[in-house]
Amino acid sequence: MNHLDELIRLFARLPGLGPRSARRVVLQLIRHKDKQLLPLLQGLQQAVDTVKQCGHCGNLDSVDPCHICTDARRDASVICVVEDVADLWAIERCHLFRGRYHVLGGTLSAIDDHGPEQLNIEPLIRRAASDEVREIILATNATLEGQTTAHYLSRRLEACNVSISRLAQGIPMGGELDYLDDGTLGAALKARLPA
Amino acid sequence: MNHLDELIRLFARLPGLGPRSARRVVLQLIRHKDKQLLPLLQGLQQAVDTVKQCGHCGNLDSVDPCHICTDARRDASVICVVEDVADLWAIERCHLFRGRYHVLGGTLSAIDDHGPEQLNIEPLIRRAASDEVREIILATNATLEGQTTAHYLSRRLEACNVSISRLAQGIPMGGELDYLDDGTLGAALKARLPA
Repeated sequence: MNHLDELIRLFARLPGLGPRSARRVVLQLIRHKDKQLLPLLQGLQQAVDTVKQCGHCGNLDSVDPCHICTDARRDASVICVVEDVADLWAIERCHLFRGRYHVLGGTLSAIDDHGPEQLNIEPLIRRAASDEVREIILATNATLEGQTTAHYLSRRLEACNVSISRLAQGIPMGGELDYLDDGTLGAALKARLPA
Repeated sequence: MNHLDELIRLFARLPGLGPRSARRVVLQLIRHKDKQLLPLLQGLQQAVDTVKQCGHCGNLDSVDPCHICTDARRDASVICVVEDVADLWAIERCHLFRGRYHVLGGTLSAIDDHGPEQLNIEPLIRRAASDEVREIILATNATLEGQTTAHYLSRRLEACNVSISRLAQGIPMGGELDYLDDGTLGAALKARLPA
């Protein structure tokens, strides 16, 4: 029973899982040993062996520099700055952005004592200073920390010869006014466009 | 990206996880390689190497027969019949039962075409027939399938010289009458006890 308890404890620490769901996960894995447990074991081993951080943009990939940084079809003159690899993936899923990325690895945060030196900022400044780069899109989250970080970055990037943009804020697709928070509605009103 | 996509796909198939939470899990594992990824890898490998089903009761353990079946302090005269190892764990957590178990491995189900031969029933009948065993507790779930299975088992066990019991049905601890379903309230009323 001890090995299983230990395994359940490890699963229960993952985001979105608790003790009960961890127990269900472990039982399902043991029941489907060949179809689920062994492939998962192999996948985790491969992740340990192959996944590395791109030294250029901070993305995770099995090669360094990553596929995005070496893809010649992508526009090297636009860099989209994101907090996290999950955000990079989210933007990739919408299949609209064909430039390169820069992963900060978090946000500035006074509460968590996260200063600029904890983030992947200096390499971004160096990339922005190169002649190749023309635009920097600050795609941090629309949270207090995300917006503070974007504000800090836009001041740091002023000296470089690049245009700086941010993601538009407004009503999400399918959003109903009555259910939106005041902040979103206010932002959408202020940023209204000619019809 | 391919190894990570594959790993996310594997996590997304686990109960309680979807694509989004699987992505969060994988990113967290990669971020905390030493503290989370490697221990999880090791735990899964240990589960593959050591966890087996007890040939006696159907429990999962690193030894066969399992610790419960070989624990001399437990009462061998009472067998608690459960659908699943998760149910066995649930009963163990309440620290009230000191007998042995028998795991059926599911329920009778006409919809899923699960007949008695798919379940671990014949070994139970043999265990119940031994002189040692005096009571069988049918602790199947309070679902249609669980109760059907309990009914079938109680008829099969009639020939054995054992007393057969079921878990009490009624109002759960902390339950408010107004929020209970009619079935539970009805069962609690029918099974009322002298105050």
